[in-house]
Amino acid sequence: MQYGQQPIRVGIVGLGTVGGGALRLLKDNASEIARRTGCPIVVSHVGVRRDRPECDTSGIRVSRDVFAVVRDPDVDILVEVMGGTTTAREVVTQALEQGKHVVTANKALLAEHGNEIFALAEAKGRFVAFEAAVAGGVPIIKVLREGLAANRINAVAGIINGTGNFILSEMRQKGRDFYEVLKEAQAMGYAEADPAFDVEGIDAAHKLTILASLAFGIPLQFKKVYAEGITRLTAADVAYAAELGYQIKHLGLARRTELGIELRVHPTLIPAERLISNVHGVKNAVLVLADPVGPTLYYGSGAGAGPTASAVVADLVDVARAMRNQPVGAGRAGVPHLAFQPDALDNTPILNIDQVHTAYYLRLLANDRPGVLADVTGILSRYSISIEAILQKPAHAADHAAGKAPIILLTKVVCEAAMNAAIGEIEALTDILDHVVRIRLETLDA
Amino acid sequence: MQYGQQPIRVGIVGLGTVGGGALRLLKDNASEIARRTGCPIVVSHVGVRRDRPECDTSGIRVSRDVFAVVRDPDVDILVEVMGGTTTAREVVTQALEQGKHVVTANKALLAEHGNEIFALAEAKGRFVAFEAAVAGGVPIIKVLREGLAANRINAVAGIINGTGNFILSEMRQKGRDFYEVLKEAQAMGYAEADPAFDVEGIDAAHKLTILASLAFGIPLQFKKVYAEGITRLTAADVAYAAELGYQIKHLGLARRTELGIELRVHPTLIPAERLISNVHGVKNAVLVLADPVGPTLYYGSGAGAGPTASAVVADLVDVARAMRNQPVGAGRAGVPHLAFQPDALDNTPILNIDQVHTAYYLRLLANDRPGVLADVTGILSRYSISIEAILQKPAHAADHAAGKAPIILLTKVVCEAAMNAAIGEIEALTDILDHVVRIRLETLDA
Repeated sequence: MQYGQQPIRVGIVGLGTVGGGALRLLKDNASEIARRTGCPIVVSHVGVRRDRPECDTSGIRVSRDVFAVVRDPDVDILVEVMGGTTTAREVVTQALEQGKHVVTANKALLAEHGNEIFALAEAKGRFVAFEAAVAGGVPIIKVLREGLAANRINAVAGIINGTGNFILSEMRQKGRDFYEVLKEAQAMGYAEADPAFDVEGIDAAHKLTILASLAFGIPLQFKKVYAEGITRLTAADVAYAAELGYQIKHLGLARRTELGIELRVHPTLIPAERLISNVHGVKNAVLVLADPVGPTLYYGSGAGAGPTASAVVADLVDVARAMRNQPVGAGRAGVPHLAFQPDALDNTPILNIDQVHTAYYLRLLANDRPGVLADVTGILSRYSISIEAILQKPAHAADHAAGKAPIILLTKVVCEAAMNAAIGEIEALTDILDHVVRIRLETLDA
Repeated sequence: MQYGQQPIRVGIVGLGTVGGGALRLLKDNASEIARRTGCPIVVSHVGVRRDRPECDTSGIRVSRDVFAVVRDPDVDILVEVMGGTTTAREVVTQALEQGKHVVTANKALLAEHGNEIFALAEAKGRFVAFEAAVAGGVPIIKVLREGLAANRINAVAGIINGTGNFILSEMRQKGRDFYEVLKEAQAMGYAEADPAFDVEGIDAAHKLTILASLAFGIPLQFKKVYAEGITRLTAADVAYAAELGYQIKHLGLARRTELGIELRVHPTLIPAERLISNVHGVKNAVLVLADPVGPTLYYGSGAGAGPTASAVVADLVDVARAMRNQPVGAGRAGVPHLAFQPDALDNTPILNIDQVHTAYYLRLLANDRPGVLADVTGILSRYSISIEAILQKPAHAADHAAGKAPIILLTKVVCEAAMNAAIGEIEALTDILDHVVRIRLETLDA
């Protein structure tokens, strides 16, 4: 790459789920990240109060005094992922005082002390980046701060606590009351032994505080959020709501009204046909109502090592790009036009359509007599094309009278070239009466 | 505001739907935008080859020679929204040569000539911003370029042509073939007289070209995209797909495989339970499969004056913030932590929960005898609470034996204080046997 290869050096304080995830991600995706940033991002120092961090820290300085990381001159950006609001606040404040940029996933810290922290960061000319604080891997902070910057935002409504949404989804699916499902969720590791932060809406209120500031341009005001939990929800209410055409979700809602701003977290009936009503399990989604863009929605995993680390490291890339940015006109090295540095684009071949692998929907019109299906499946079999489903439909009246019947097949994934050859042979059968209709099928699972 | 109030001056070339929308948006949301940017963004010059632009250009220099805008020294950022790939290419190239930043919504131009345009921009140290080129108001460019920068992206799958998706939604809903619905869509103004760009997948191929570059770090390669239209889809195939549990969508799909990259636009069966299958009408959505974030999805309006202008003006804010950015450590004036400049936060009051307006779901357990419902609705009526729906359910066996029955009510929007008072009176009725269960209800329409 043409730009300086001087690495950006990162210190991580806290090596739990998120910290460990970030460490692993920076290693696993190092080359992809460097192609985007224009330089490597390396972890130089981690602070962890436990004796033995569970993840691989080989080649990295490890301190049990987290403030040793904060003071380390070989750390350009400090990642605070220890949680809590006391030591973490000290860590962030001192890092800024030391002239370091900060990346944090700590919504409680920001919701409760963010006004002072951001003021200090502004005074010091440093960044405090916090994409991981809300909705995990969904870049909702950037969307509100930059992507929708032209809009007057009227409301933000989010499913922003995965544990709570998992419990509600299970209640609905299994027809059970809250506490039964909670016990299951705890047994499966989806809910903490003390689930109050999640199910009482405190965690969601922290996140809503941050979203509301970004949406409306108001200071962080956590204490003014109304928070009501999902603990009193019964299977009966979930069922009645469904019967009336609604889903019950634990929604964080910030809305601008003529009287002032509503900030509230509570169980909420939402029309079942809304996209956000179809967000199930541990997933998060944030709906933004804004003028003139209208409704937009952002969906993905709101928690877990990978998704949260995705946000932490995106912040690192952001800060690193900004550190390497040059004044306008002096050549750019900040955010590249095509996401990757111009000299880091690669020449991976683009496949021709007949090299593509996909599943297929096939519709055939055939003479309605024995043996046709066997002929067709025989041809598919010779091309190693497996069948996923067959639908044999009664023919339309006219076709029926003419002795014709449609056959619909779904195949498993196969190379298009093989499918083309198979279709050619199928169409050559005397009992096949028309061109084969072929539509590709994608399951789009992760 | 503490930062310099020197306005950023914008020239707009093309005053059709998008240009007119951007002009109007910069005026309507001027104060909200200035609070975010830290300075006003003003339109100083528009170029429009027609005689009379349809929108209000009072106070703005208007030229019929679009290159007069390009050469104007009072233009800092040039917005190219004229469309096409010949004059538009000249306009963008000359603007960069003149040292101007460029914002464009022109996917055809970028998909076909973007490699050269971005190379020139890099050489000149200028931005070419293009959020409006894909998925209208949904900030998918920023998401791929920055929000997901830590990920190895495996696939991008998008409903990225609103007209096509509108036609498919109508086909499914009304059970009609493609050409019937197309004629309707044309009559309603949703489809152009020449709809080939939309329904043959060319427009989607342009957009997919851009998404694939951002996702994988490859040059723009429009000519290698396989594009197949939706014109041959029949009502029968849509119905068979539904019966098998699938929706047919016109999907743009870019996928990384071991052999190379697949770039294809074609009708695609998708499992009906996927969120993207539930994107109907003119809406767009882009699903990104990435590691480690997993699947994330971005949804909103992909076309129209407002949504597209939202993206164009977000780009203007981005460029303006970058122009005003100071070197790290010298005080920041770029992207503010809380989206709005720190001295532009305002003190809009946060409402107490009893000032909030919302609709309600109420569940009452009542003695099963005449007059109870009349008493309840009488109380609601006295507090001006309108009823949206009533569900009277057969009681559970035990309740039934005891002469008790549940009543479920949905109300229209009302102030929470009034609802609290009404619930107090309802609970005081001798025939009401338990606390009233109250869950708030939000329709979340735009």
